[in-house]
Formats: sequence, C-alpha cells, structure tokens
Amino acid sequence: MWKPDRHSKKPLYEQIADHLETRISYGEFPPGSLLPSERKLAEQLGVNRSTVVLAFAELRSMGIIESRTGSGTRVSTSKWGALPKHTPNWSRYAEGGSFLPNLPFMRKIREALTRQTSLIDMASGELSGDLAPIEEIAALMSEHRYTSYLGYDNPQGYIPLRQALVQYLADYRGIHTTESSIMITSGSQQSLYLITQCLLSPGDAVAIEDPSYCYSLPMFQSAGLRLFRLPVDQHGVCPEDIRSLYKKHRIKMVFMNPNFQNPTGTVLSMERRKQLFDVASELGLPIVEDDPFSLTAYETAAPEPLKAMDSNGSILYIGSFSKIAASGLRIGWMVAPQSIVERLADARQQMDFGLSVIPQQVAAQFIKSSYFQPHLERLRMQLQFKKDLMVEALQKELPDLVTWTAPHGGLHLWCKLQLEVPDGRLLEEAVKRGVVFVPGSVYGSDAGYVRLTYARPKTEEIATGIARFAEALRSFQ
Amino acid sequence: MWKPDRHSKKPLYEQIADHLETRISYGEFPPGSLLPSERKLAEQLGVNRSTVVLAFAELRSMGIIESRTGSGTRVSTSKWGALPKHTPNWSRYAEGGSFLPNLPFMRKIREALTRQTSLIDMASGELSGDLAPIEEIAALMSEHRYTSYLGYDNPQGYIPLRQALVQYLADYRGIHTTESSIMITSGSQQSLYLITQCLLSPGDAVAIEDPSYCYSLPMFQSAGLRLFRLPVDQHGVCPEDIRSLYKKHRIKMVFMNPNFQNPTGTVLSMERRKQLFDVASELGLPIVEDDPFSLTAYETAAPEPLKAMDSNGSILYIGSFSKIAASGLRIGWMVAPQSIVERLADARQQMDFGLSVIPQQVAAQFIKSSYFQPHLERLRMQLQFKKDLMVEALQKELPDLVTWTAPHGGLHLWCKLQLEVPDGRLLEEAVKRGVVFVPGSVYGSDAGYVRLTYARPKTEEIATGIARFAEALRSFQ
Repeated sequence: MWKPDRHSKKPLYEQIADHLETRISYGEFPPGSLLPSERKLAEQLGVNRSTVVLAFAELRSMGIIESRTGSGTRVSTSKWGALPKHTPNWSRYAEGGSFLPNLPFMRKIREALTRQTSLIDMASGELSGDLAPIEEIAALMSEHRYTSYLGYDNPQGYIPLRQALVQYLADYRGIHTTESSIMITSGSQQSLYLITQCLLSPGDAVAIEDPSYCYSLPMFQSAGLRLFRLPVDQHGVCPEDIRSLYKKHRIKMVFMNPNFQNPTGTVLSMERRKQLFDVASELGLPIVEDDPFSLTAYETAAPEPLKAMDSNGSILYIGSFSKIAASGLRIGWMVAPQSIVERLADARQQMDFGLSVIPQQVAAQFIKSSYFQPHLERLRMQLQFKKDLMVEALQKELPDLVTWTAPHGGLHLWCKLQLEVPDGRLLEEAVKRGVVFVPGSVYGSDAGYVRLTYARPKTEEIATGIARFAEALRSFQ
Repeated sequence: MWKPDRHSKKPLYEQIADHLETRISYGEFPPGSLLPSERKLAEQLGVNRSTVVLAFAELRSMGIIESRTGSGTRVSTSKWGALPKHTPNWSRYAEGGSFLPNLPFMRKIREALTRQTSLIDMASGELSGDLAPIEEIAALMSEHRYTSYLGYDNPQGYIPLRQALVQYLADYRGIHTTESSIMITSGSQQSLYLITQCLLSPGDAVAIEDPSYCYSLPMFQSAGLRLFRLPVDQHGVCPEDIRSLYKKHRIKMVFMNPNFQNPTGTVLSMERRKQLFDVASELGLPIVEDDPFSLTAYETAAPEPLKAMDSNGSILYIGSFSKIAASGLRIGWMVAPQSIVERLADARQQMDFGLSVIPQQVAAQFIKSSYFQPHLERLRMQLQFKKDLMVEALQKELPDLVTWTAPHGGLHLWCKLQLEVPDGRLLEEAVKRGVVFVPGSVYGSDAGYVRLTYARPKTEEIATGIARFAEALRSFQ
C-alpha cells in the first residue's frame, strides 16, 4: 500500500494531498463519497493526525473535498463538471444486499493486522510460516510440471485430488468413500457456506455448539437461519440437548466440531458420540462434522471422526488442509451423499466456477508424497511445544487472572479471565501494546473469555505476546 | 471415475453390483435415497442398459435396493439394522435452500461432456489447451519459487498481483487506478456473484442485455432480482431503453458487456457509449461493465472500456484471465470505488476466505513477464484463424440454414437458424452425433439461435464439429 516518502523534499502533507487527489480523479472516491476519517488515514499512512489535517485543508482549498461537522469529509460534487451529474449513491449500495458484514471485532482485528505488521498475532486461526510445509511444497512444485490443461475444472473438483483424498481419508481418518462423494472446496469455510446457502432455507432452525466458531460467521444469519445453542462442557455437547431443541424448535441440522473443538479444545467423549448417533438416527437429523484439527493430536491419536462410525448416513463430513498444512492453499473437502455433493457442486459453479487447478494439483502431490507423514510428525511436536510455551508464559505472567484447560490438539488456548473486563476495551489495550487475540464473545460465549492462538505467532514471539497481553489485562486491575 | 473392468473374469453386472453395494455401504447412497436410473448409469459406466438391469436385480435379490414402478430404484431402509433408524431425508435437503440450480440445458451439456470425453466441445466458453499459455506458465513456475508464506491472503487479494494489474490496466485498457481499488476474484463469475448478493436486495430491478450471458446464471434469480431486457442490435444496446426501464421499474443497476458481447459478438458503438454515460449520470445509475474479451480483438484494437471514460464514477469494472490466458487459473478482478471493494472483500471472506495465493503469484508473474505480449499476439492470430475455419465450415455445410455476423473478437459465433427446431431436441441430436453447443434460449434470446464456440475445440475438430452439427440440424428438415 502507498505510504508517503519520508526522504522526499516534498512535505508529507503535500504528498498525501496529491495522492488523494489522484485517487479521487480515478473514481476510487467518487463525488459525494466519504473519505476515511483523519484519524484512520493517519494510522494507515503512519503519520501524525495533524499531517492529514493539513492535507485535507489543502484539498479543501482547491474545492476537491468538503467537510461538514459531524458528517465527515466528502468528495465535492460541484467541482467535477458543470452539468448536474449524479454519481451512483455507492454507500447505499455498499450497505445493501442481504449478506451481512463480518463481526466488528473480526474487522477490527483484521484492520489492526493490516495496519501494524509488527503486531504479534494470537488471533488468526492458522499456522505460522515455519510450521507450514513451505519447503516441501516448493520442492514438489519444482519437481512436477503443474500445468496440464488449465481449463475449467470438474464441478466437484480436480479428480486426482479427490482420488488422493479417498486414500488419505481411509489411512488417516478411517473414512471409506469414493471420489464421487467428495467435493473440493475453498477450505472448510466454503463447505459451511454452501451448506447454509443451499441446503437450508431462511427461517430454518439449526443447532450449533456454544461457544463455537459458527457464531463468528454472520453467514448463518445472512442465510436467515435461527441459531440454537448446545453448551459445550469438558466432554463436548450433551446429545440429549439436541433432542430437546428438536422438540422445541424442529431444528433441521446440527453443526459440530467433535475433535479439539474451536475454541474450547474439548474432545467429544465416546459415550456421547454413541448417544449422538442414537439421537440423530431417531430424529433423522443431519449432522455437519467439521474436522480440521484431528491430525494435530499431540500425543495420543484423536478419536475417529463421527463419519467413520456413520452406518446410518447422518453425517456431512468437512475437512481441510488449512490447519495441518497451509491455509493459503485454500483446499478443503466435503464427504456427503451423492445427491448433496451434486447439488452443492452445481451451486458452486455459479458462485465462482470452482477452484484453480494449480493448488489442487499441489495438494494432491503433497498428500501422496513422502513429505506428508514427516511433516505431520514435526507439526505435532512443534504445536505441542508452542502450546507449552504459551502455558508457561501464562503461568508466569497471569497465574492469578487467567485459567484454562490445556488441549491435547488444535491451535488455540481457550482462557477464562478472573477479572471483569469489557471485551472491546481489552482488545484495544492489547493492540496498543502490540498483540491481538480474539475476544470470547465472538464465539457467542459469556463474557470473560479470550481465545489465544499459539500456532500463529512465531515461537520467539509467544512469551512477549503473553507479556503484552498480561500488561493489557492488568491495566484494568 | 470408476468403470467396470472389461478384462476381468468377473461378469460386468457383478462388478457393477459390487461397486454399488460398496458405495451404498459407505453412505454415498444412504438408506431411502434414489439411485441413478438404469439408463443414466449405463451411460456413465459405458455399458448396455441390460447389464445395469442385471446388476440391479442382483442387489434387489439381496434386499439392498427396492424398485417401485414409477418412482425409481431406492436403497432399502429395512436392510440396515433392526432398530427403526431414520436417515436424514437428504433429497429434501438437496432441494432446499434459496439458491437455484443451474439451467437444465447447462447441466445437460456438462453431463454430456463428463460422460463422453470424445465429444467436440463448441459449448464451453473457454480456450482450447493449445491456445492457453501452458508452456509459459510451466516455465514461470519452475523459474520462480512460488511459496513464500502461504497464510490467509489479504481480503482484497494478493497485493503484488493487484500492483501488477494497476500497470496492466493502464497499459492495456487505459484504466487508471491504484491497488486499493482492485479486488481479485475467482474469475468474472465471482465478481458478478458478489455484486448480485451483496449490493442488491431481493426485489431490486436490474437491466441486462438481451441476449446475454446473465440469463444463463440463475444466480440473478437466486438473489431475488427482477430482470429487465435491453435488446442488443448490431451496435449494442440503446441507452434510451435504460431511461425507459428506469422510469417504469426503478432499475438499480445495469449489466453490460460492451466489447464483443457474449453471445452476439457486437461492440457498443462510440455514439451509444456517450449516450450511455449521459443516461447513467443523469439517473445516478451504476453500470457493471464485464470486459473479458477486449484483448482478443483480431485486427483493430477494441474500444477502450467504459471505465476508462468514467469521469463520473458510474462504472464497476470486471476483468479476467479466463478468456485471454486460462480459465483454470481462476483469476478475475474488479475495479470499483473504495467502499464497494471493501464491502465485497469482507463478504467474500465469509464465503471462501479468499483465493489461494499460488495461482495469484503465477498470474502476477505472467503479466509482468516477457511471455505476455507475444502470447496475446499469438492468441489473436489463432482465434481469428479458428473463427475463419468455423465460418468456412458453416458456409460449406449450412449455407442455406444458418446466418451469422462474424465478430472481430471473442470466442463465439452467434448463429440464427433458418429452420424451426426445438432447442432441446437439436441439442440431443447433436450430442448423439458427437458435438455440443449452447442453445440460444440459455441467453434469453428468441428461439432459433445457437452459440457455437470456435475457441474451445481443437483446430482440427472444427470442420468435423460443424459437419456433425449440420447433420443434426438437417435431421429436422
């Protein structure tokens, strides 16, 4: 992104005024549209607010922008041509549509991370660069020729990748299927999106875990779904709760993450898995099983997924490489009955015409390669190491103010705060000190929780990150 | 996809019965679900229908499936366990959701292409393998190391690709913008999807060209939009028609493809472009400009896009590499006011969490490379050559029954038939003879048109493809 040149002879404010004038002339800020606030622009450009004030004054004196107290600074409508012209009311369009924007906290976190690249990131649910198999993928890409035809792909995804996944699912997850019942998606995210958009109708009731990643996804509300909560305790959700929700609200689908649940890290107990199948088959209720973390299990293997025990055909199974290889591959998959896969593949054609073949080829080579198993072993060890580092740091910095149950797999530590602090203000204080996390309320939980991701920061950043977080938290004492 | 082994000692019908039994046991066809029809299965597996009849009889005798006259063959519900278990009613879920399935013709064409790989494809709107820069991309991928971090990407897309596009848009399309106002999408398709989902609300009226690619996209109906037609003549649409539609229906947006319009191949005349801007700015009406074909212009350069003349900020500009490089890259872009790009990038995060970084890196290298310009020159020559081949073949085979206006760019020939033939039956006859095309009704046009794509078949297939099409058409004489 453009930043003013501090070595130039031209004053910073003039550079900024010129830059804005150019962008206004390009139509990026059409006549009548709102410019970012002085404060926000100062943050983005890394200058003092007073510099932006000067730049705005310059533009105002040229008649390019207009400021009115209380309604911000806008691009002039009079300046641009003599005729009475009307620019579309873009801001009204941007507010339109039935698709809801992301949660304010998530946008705030993203903005902070874009603005301040030095921030220690304990918010993004992904692996750090050194945990991802970058070298292995680079090696595979230079060994293989990755471009064969490069036309539109099969609607369900690249066939060799689906074939490789048949083997992978049998070997690693005890799931038996054929490539006909697999659909490749852009991470788990797109699987969830397709399910909520194409299999459920506005007004349908669904059950989700509480707390749960699903709460952080306004796509559930955008699809007009009514959400009901299944509280998660140390053994996961109670399947009997599903029965009562069904009786009361006729829920149409259940969304679950049974292994190393996001954000709590809990594993659904064997007993409850059995009860769950009883309830699901009694009610004829489909269960969406999101299984991104199982292969990160640090010591003993994670339980088999529900899908491996699914003699009744109740489970839509979702998996992904995002948490065990690299989120930037954007490769996830769904295993589902034929009719469902066909329906979703058809809909996805219209949304984006499918994924690029290139990362699908890379992913297929990777799971079939001799790199895959050693990568997983290294990943598990390093995740456990990072988890231990974060636990140690918390024990050192905040033994009195934070409690947690250390998970046996996954990327996150779910922490309860022993101090009443408003979510938003804690996040602000943390950002000021150079660290971000996700407030618990994003996952629909009661106040007083935070999700701290140990997988994303670099090893050497974890102690510092927790120290900064501790400082932010203690500022409320 | 699985096919029976013709060299095995096991009879074909037994192999098929075993295969189906396995897939049923995997839950791909859950209890109660409908199996494909005997006819469809026979086509898919490349066997006689009688073989499938035998396989079904075998499964029926084992109690695995049940057939009832008129309602097809279903997986038994009784066989699977003694307890009264209920499998979710998957077919009801597959029919649910507000997202409409693809048009039957489009699904029929896709199915035919999947089933019969020897079909000559004059239906898919993309380049043949030999027109795509496969060698160049392979060379770039082996020259560069393509994996740096591989985390979640910037919501608007990979910054170096956006920067490369700033230069590309200035050099090739006369559009001046900065990377802040560019969003990378999965082809033009995702740009259109995001616009219809996020900027418009159910019930909103929009204007589209008639005929138009937009008609082939049930996404417009899925978003609840009311579509109104702008007839396309040899100079494109008449801007005055927009004014009348606005008065009558308060249209909220106009979708246009001014250069080498899909499917007609027409170019919007200069005079009408000027009128269009007058109408748009008078009404404050946004125009979505889809510009995938301009760089294919065979002899004289295509006119500059509307966006290059857009002093008023009325245009949302969409471009893509699908038609000038390779559709399998899945790289498109939108140039739009800041507020719109931010809104759409935010929504896209929730739908699929963005595109893989890998094809974005490849695309950025490609447009900056010395391969790009020579590729375009070769592409233009070859497209023109293929267009001429198709025109010659039509002149030879169907001089009496088909008329067309040969386009000066693009991938398609839009043909009027001098014979009344039902769209669906003509398509069927063509498939039988080994060729597919798109019936004109898919584009919302009056009966009696077909779109024949010359870019997709191999050079040596064009004459044969047209001969087969001619035979199909003449069968109605």
